[in-house]
Amino acid sequence: MEITNAHGAGGKIMEDFIKKFILGSFSNSSLGSVNLEDLDDGASITLENYEVVITSDSHTIKPLFFPGGDIGKLAACGTINDLAVMGAKPLALSCNLVIEEGFSSNKLEKILDSMNKVVRQNNAFVICGDTKVIEKGRVDKLIVTTTGIGIAPKNKVLGDSCVKPGDKIIVSGTVGDHGIALLSYREGFTTDLISDVESVLPVISKAVEVGGVHAAKDPTRGGLANALNEWAEKAGVGIVIEEDKIPIREEVKALSALLGIDALTVACEGRAILSVSQEKAKDVLSEIRKLPQGKDAEIIGEATEENLKRVIMKTEIGGKRILERPLADPIPRIC
Amino acid sequence: MEITNAHGAGGKIMEDFIKKFILGSFSNSSLGSVNLEDLDDGASITLENYEVVITSDSHTIKPLFFPGGDIGKLAACGTINDLAVMGAKPLALSCNLVIEEGFSSNKLEKILDSMNKVVRQNNAFVICGDTKVIEKGRVDKLIVTTTGIGIAPKNKVLGDSCVKPGDKIIVSGTVGDHGIALLSYREGFTTDLISDVESVLPVISKAVEVGGVHAAKDPTRGGLANALNEWAEKAGVGIVIEEDKIPIREEVKALSALLGIDALTVACEGRAILSVSQEKAKDVLSEIRKLPQGKDAEIIGEATEENLKRVIMKTEIGGKRILERPLADPIPRIC
Repeated sequence: MEITNAHGAGGKIMEDFIKKFILGSFSNSSLGSVNLEDLDDGASITLENYEVVITSDSHTIKPLFFPGGDIGKLAACGTINDLAVMGAKPLALSCNLVIEEGFSSNKLEKILDSMNKVVRQNNAFVICGDTKVIEKGRVDKLIVTTTGIGIAPKNKVLGDSCVKPGDKIIVSGTVGDHGIALLSYREGFTTDLISDVESVLPVISKAVEVGGVHAAKDPTRGGLANALNEWAEKAGVGIVIEEDKIPIREEVKALSALLGIDALTVACEGRAILSVSQEKAKDVLSEIRKLPQGKDAEIIGEATEENLKRVIMKTEIGGKRILERPLADPIPRIC
Repeated sequence: MEITNAHGAGGKIMEDFIKKFILGSFSNSSLGSVNLEDLDDGASITLENYEVVITSDSHTIKPLFFPGGDIGKLAACGTINDLAVMGAKPLALSCNLVIEEGFSSNKLEKILDSMNKVVRQNNAFVICGDTKVIEKGRVDKLIVTTTGIGIAPKNKVLGDSCVKPGDKIIVSGTVGDHGIALLSYREGFTTDLISDVESVLPVISKAVEVGGVHAAKDPTRGGLANALNEWAEKAGVGIVIEEDKIPIREEVKALSALLGIDALTVACEGRAILSVSQEKAKDVLSEIRKLPQGKDAEIIGEATEENLKRVIMKTEIGGKRILERPLADPIPRIC
């Protein structure tokens, strides 16, 4: 079989491919409360009273610089967010660079500065890395792979399977900005829309402080539609959301209509979704709304005991439809 | 400035580039006993009674399958070896794949099987990862980035700067096999020579058990010449080695003469060098020689208080010459 773009696009085809070819090759493991087979954003190793949480991501974005950020900011936020959604405090990142011969050292410096800025703002450090330069044509400019190490108290790691029926689903801000901004930029549209790329750590830390948080997730590849479906499947619950509660910018609505793309299926890079107990949901919402990163947060729906493993969307005109996970990424190479 | 192949080739040019552009961009950090600025094979974070050791490497080797191994085996051994030389017990690896569209899933499966085999033989697990598939032409077949997590007792991490004057320098086996085997294969020479790619964990664990080990290192990019020079510079010692004590296969000697390449400057992928106290050196040597991975081990020289930061080689014909670190890798893309 030839591997195609769809096998890496964050949808159902990718999940099947990963399960068959990647997980099939690796031995099962249980070093902490979260393991490879959970297909969460990372894994953990128990060490005395802690869980050492590890997450890893390769960034192959095109273009390297985009409205609202660059590959360095994206890589740092992506890795910190993957730790944050597991309930871990980010400590350290590794930074691996594969650079095409001829790439500009000025651009590289800008990218690494962006990365360092985000890492420092989140009280973490870049502690190791590796740099490979390869011949022209063997890689498109630059690939950045970051691995993050974080710490959570033992047995306090948040996992996708911990969503409980009755939980309210909160989204921390407007959806689809990153994906639609990048595609618009690539297509040459004139728009002020910028990527939402930023750290979700402040929002998640605040929510965990308030209490009642059962799960957190960042809707990257495959967008909100994919993230909610992963929760429904892994936790074995139903999820019902209300279309008119989902915060979406007017610009994103207009551009996604123009582009023929559903904004719920494209990546966000600075948003979190939270599954919070009914009792605590309003408190969490009002606290995270006080943060600049959470000012547009909304309760968009809830987990149910019906329609198990499905996500149902109540539409603005009063109907209901199944919100499917995308088979593949409608916009490749944006995260 | 345009970045060139030499900036990633493991020599002096690379070290200067890393110091200026990469370290210059990142904030200094001190989370454990080994930090980014040490330019060791990894870094560490102190956590209660442990040091969590982290190391990371991107593999862009060409070809993906070579005599004696493949990119999966290479990535797993490389990462495990980087942990082992820091005195850490490997626990877990992350596996990040950047795959070119059209790559064969059968080949991928073989590569991941090789990786898993090595990881399991060393009692570690692959616990997380990320898979990206990108358009044809944007990457040459496959890049594998592995990050390793290991554990060492607190303050027991081995660092390059710990080599002490008087220490004996031991090499665990024949030098240059990997580099010369790969280049010969790429050039189409007929030879039985195979890569030395394997885990150095058994050798290092045994040596540490015997005692007196001050530092360990795997001579990868830049070979033995680079590794010894890094020790001399970072530890502020001199190193004197005897050419006729260095174990080199006759085939490697012949092929490197034919290729016009110094075998001391090409990568090994399954060898360790050890800096061991004078008292313990012979015991360490005789114990590691009992292992299949250490049967060709030799004491090749010693660290001195003279010729600080230099490596001097006593030649077979009785002369002396400075063994310089290579400016860049004589054989790119082999590790």
